[in-house]
Amino acid sequence: MKDFTLHIPTKIIFGKDAIKKLGDQIKGNYNKVLLHYGGGSIKKSGLYNDVVRILKDNDCEIFELSGVEPNPKLGLVRKGVQMAKENEIDLILAVGGGSAIDSAKAIGIGALYDGDVWDFYSGKLEPEITIPVGVVLTLPATGSEASRGSVITNEDGLYKRSTGGDFMRPVFAIMDPTYTLTLPTKQTFAGIMDIMAHIFERYFTQTPHVNLTDSLCEGTLKTVIQNAYIIKEDSQNYDARAEIMFAGTIAHNGLLGVGREEDWSSHDIGHEISALYGTTHGETLSIIFPAWMKYVYKENVDRFVQFATKVFDVSEAEMDKDEIAIEGIKRLEGFISDIGLPKSFTEANLPTDKIDLMAEKATEDGPLGNFKKLYKDDVIKIYKLAK
Amino acid sequence: MKDFTLHIPTKIIFGKDAIKKLGDQIKGNYNKVLLHYGGGSIKKSGLYNDVVRILKDNDCEIFELSGVEPNPKLGLVRKGVQMAKENEIDLILAVGGGSAIDSAKAIGIGALYDGDVWDFYSGKLEPEITIPVGVVLTLPATGSEASRGSVITNEDGLYKRSTGGDFMRPVFAIMDPTYTLTLPTKQTFAGIMDIMAHIFERYFTQTPHVNLTDSLCEGTLKTVIQNAYIIKEDSQNYDARAEIMFAGTIAHNGLLGVGREEDWSSHDIGHEISALYGTTHGETLSIIFPAWMKYVYKENVDRFVQFATKVFDVSEAEMDKDEIAIEGIKRLEGFISDIGLPKSFTEANLPTDKIDLMAEKATEDGPLGNFKKLYKDDVIKIYKLAK
Repeated sequence: MKDFTLHIPTKIIFGKDAIKKLGDQIKGNYNKVLLHYGGGSIKKSGLYNDVVRILKDNDCEIFELSGVEPNPKLGLVRKGVQMAKENEIDLILAVGGGSAIDSAKAIGIGALYDGDVWDFYSGKLEPEITIPVGVVLTLPATGSEASRGSVITNEDGLYKRSTGGDFMRPVFAIMDPTYTLTLPTKQTFAGIMDIMAHIFERYFTQTPHVNLTDSLCEGTLKTVIQNAYIIKEDSQNYDARAEIMFAGTIAHNGLLGVGREEDWSSHDIGHEISALYGTTHGETLSIIFPAWMKYVYKENVDRFVQFATKVFDVSEAEMDKDEIAIEGIKRLEGFISDIGLPKSFTEANLPTDKIDLMAEKATEDGPLGNFKKLYKDDVIKIYKLAK
Repeated sequence: MKDFTLHIPTKIIFGKDAIKKLGDQIKGNYNKVLLHYGGGSIKKSGLYNDVVRILKDNDCEIFELSGVEPNPKLGLVRKGVQMAKENEIDLILAVGGGSAIDSAKAIGIGALYDGDVWDFYSGKLEPEITIPVGVVLTLPATGSEASRGSVITNEDGLYKRSTGGDFMRPVFAIMDPTYTLTLPTKQTFAGIMDIMAHIFERYFTQTPHVNLTDSLCEGTLKTVIQNAYIIKEDSQNYDARAEIMFAGTIAHNGLLGVGREEDWSSHDIGHEISALYGTTHGETLSIIFPAWMKYVYKENVDRFVQFATKVFDVSEAEMDKDEIAIEGIKRLEGFISDIGLPKSFTEANLPTDKIDLMAEKATEDGPLGNFKKLYKDDVIKIYKLAK
């Protein structure tokens, strides 16, 4: 096990009508709130009205910036930074999913910085302080409600880049699973794929003797798979929605990765697909992960045997290690098909003529990953395995 | 799943030489530190000198209160409260195990209260604020390094009572597994029993559909059992010590209990044994838990079947549910014997003539537990099952 620091100060307020506790978080703490969200869905559901009423009841001056898109854009972030500076905002309240939250986090660090907020994402410098960010979560997927990171897309060049720090974790996250009962099927399952991918990026490690986090990863993965099938049969099942929603937080708040080297190459390889085609993040992961697994499993076949047997209950009888590992990957592909996500560029109706460009961009800051270091040629091979 | 709030702001600094990061936590934050510990073991090991040097290097004025005993006493807490008040202490730094930490937490809340600190433990009122508590952990067991609670024994009447709140979680915990390599065998395994008991009190619930926390509980329990056997064979195994140390935090920081009704009756029933005979907390749990399980399992045999199959790999073949449940409890008893702890009053060389008095005191504030509500007569039967 490696040394680590773990600091997750985000207060999780979870359950039916959790929004009723929003006022307790605001009162006496914040006065000028930037409400940050996507489009009309929170207006249709009534959540927008609830939030505005609670903020007003707690004497807040409300500023609004809507229009956050999936794969949130730098342009809107810059607009938010300007608003936050001009109005001395003291809380950015993201209402929505990971895009609204990541965008809010970017505004938070940008508002206390004199230069351009992209400097933090381009790697020019590390952020150190932020305006507090609060969250009302409507879509479990990215884990951004308690994570230390933010991913933003720069429209100029279609770069998707990230930054982070423990100080960037939201101060609170209101999480009511009832908001997720009406999610479209595709969003539900793309979110589930994202949750699983956050665990995979931590689970597939070369660090030895990480029993506890292994078991937490395996347990969370099994829970997600089990409840994905329940939701497929019964989209209105509150308990299954609740399991998925909390699993989304656990998958990416950092707990499952402590003491082990992580590997984020599949996310990076997938990011280039959404940067180019606007593909939903979860779909890029369902396309890339099986291909990545097939390409790298021989680097540590025992770990893939453990994955196959512990997560997908593959029996070790009458198969050699390679066969067990491959069977585990096959079962993951079967699960991806069962939840209606694409396993390839073809299934996602995406062209494959830009593979070279995508591999070039994905690796322009150096090789990716740790489980196996991936150079441009490796990434091309993974894209081709995912054709 | 039930609604919940989860807030664990404790910063965990974990690994070899983690003490080197103590200065970063102190610098600019604290000036007048009450160093709180037990006896000579931290002086023998050199840890005391390390801590004092770091505090001095960071311009702290150091006040000292040693003499914390297992099952920490109200008398010493009152002395600490007085010292904290008189010297305007701004950090209480507990160096040791759960006793030093629980005592430090008590001093923290007592120092900002005009009345007697026992008021918080007797249930007269709820604490709301504290002087910050920091931790350098040397013994993994109680989980107090990141938990919201504190347990103190009132020498006058031998009452062992608890209080808590999220604000009582330590601000940081320095956790270096190398400190635990030299722990006496009995302390190591009593600590492991305490860790497991913290999970049991959450795992055995009547709340339906708690898949995620079930899987986290089961994974943590299996990890603890697996690594206990490694330590039994090789007490110097750093990785196994690290797994146990972090498991101790996870077991009791609240994560494993979210969304489910917990049951703390076994702790309460065990507390009366240590209040009367000074028995190590972990030993009271190894005595009480199997008896409690045998007494209550029929209230929800499916949960005990799940425990037997998921934690102890009991096969479901050719046994009915009751037999599987009983087999799980038997395997727990086998594990307790393997790690050299007592499963009964007899094995612990304790008298059984005060059972009635203990049951009376354990239930004097009302019945215990939730899995099955336990009245005085039930508690007597459990003590008798543990004879």
